[in-house]
Amino acid sequence: MNIEAKKNAKLDEVTVSTKPVFEGKVISLQIDTVQLPDGSTASREIIKHPGAVAVLAVHAGKIVMVDQFRQAMGRCELEIPAGKLEKGEDPLEAAKRELQEETGYVCKNIRLLHSFYTSPGFADEIIHLYVADELESGAAAPDEDEFLELYELTLPEAEAAIGSGRISDAKTIMAVYALKLKQVTGTYGL
Amino acid sequence: MNIEAKKNAKLDEVTVSTKPVFEGKVISLQIDTVQLPDGSTASREIIKHPGAVAVLAVHAGKIVMVDQFRQAMGRCELEIPAGKLEKGEDPLEAAKRELQEETGYVCKNIRLLHSFYTSPGFADEIIHLYVADELESGAAAPDEDEFLELYELTLPEAEAAIGSGRISDAKTIMAVYALKLKQVTGTYGL
Repeated sequence: MNIEAKKNAKLDEVTVSTKPVFEGKVISLQIDTVQLPDGSTASREIIKHPGAVAVLAVHAGKIVMVDQFRQAMGRCELEIPAGKLEKGEDPLEAAKRELQEETGYVCKNIRLLHSFYTSPGFADEIIHLYVADELESGAAAPDEDEFLELYELTLPEAEAAIGSGRISDAKTIMAVYALKLKQVTGTYGL
Repeated sequence: MNIEAKKNAKLDEVTVSTKPVFEGKVISLQIDTVQLPDGSTASREIIKHPGAVAVLAVHAGKIVMVDQFRQAMGRCELEIPAGKLEKGEDPLEAAKRELQEETGYVCKNIRLLHSFYTSPGFADEIIHLYVADELESGAAAPDEDEFLELYELTLPEAEAAIGSGRISDAKTIMAVYALKLKQVTGTYGL
């Protein structure tokens, strides 16, 4: 089966116009008018996001996570360390920075597991998911509007937390799955 | 380790005010002012989304996917069938509806695998991920602004497509991982 992406006149849409609606600190919103394959037009509400990194960090056989309040959900969420890319920042450097800022850990080994889009229907946010280990403790330095608590979970504890809904976001569930699938090999084994 | 969510004065934020910015067909945007645990305030850009369903459907040992143009990415993406919840719609019924509309398949067996948030940092979008099999072919009926092509991939083909970036969204990668982890048991085995 040929599943390579290619120009496809039966599917491709063409941008006719873009109307900026909002530009914020983190996200911006625009409404694109697109021409559909049948020649008609439709509007698409699109969120632009700078991109983010997330880190599956393993320390003493446990997964490093942070608990933080998420306003969108109205409650605390247990997640792997993550954060937005700064302007022009290399994702690998951002991953090391976010891990250190949120947890204090400095990692000796880090590699990209993969990158993925979180909400292709309305947002261009991409998350670059890294795996890190050989961690050394240090001082955390969260952003001034960021309040976090550090947790370290075994794989069974993380799976139980997915089951209970205490962990409920895509990047963290994906990281736990990847670890369980032993995509995290070499020095990263639990 | 106690990882249950609880009221936590060191982490919890309190909504002070909400300013509506945009209300669209699919998403709305608001800026919330929150009081942080240290008493200071911060603003949060929040996208409200009606929620969505996605379906990991297995037919003749292959995973059912649809190729469609995604304006946010500017290219076609291979994804499992998915769509927004209609107002007041039961997620299970929405999952059956989206599978039939996008692929023509009617499923006899369907169950919830789990629900997850896609972008907890800025959006309340939740996706309810279902597993379905015992599919019967029928006529697809996509929305009028929706142009799709049906694909059916073996598990190795799906993994290769994740590797090449042809599959690059969180829900589809998560579904492939779940299948590989054999969380999809009973009649759903590949």
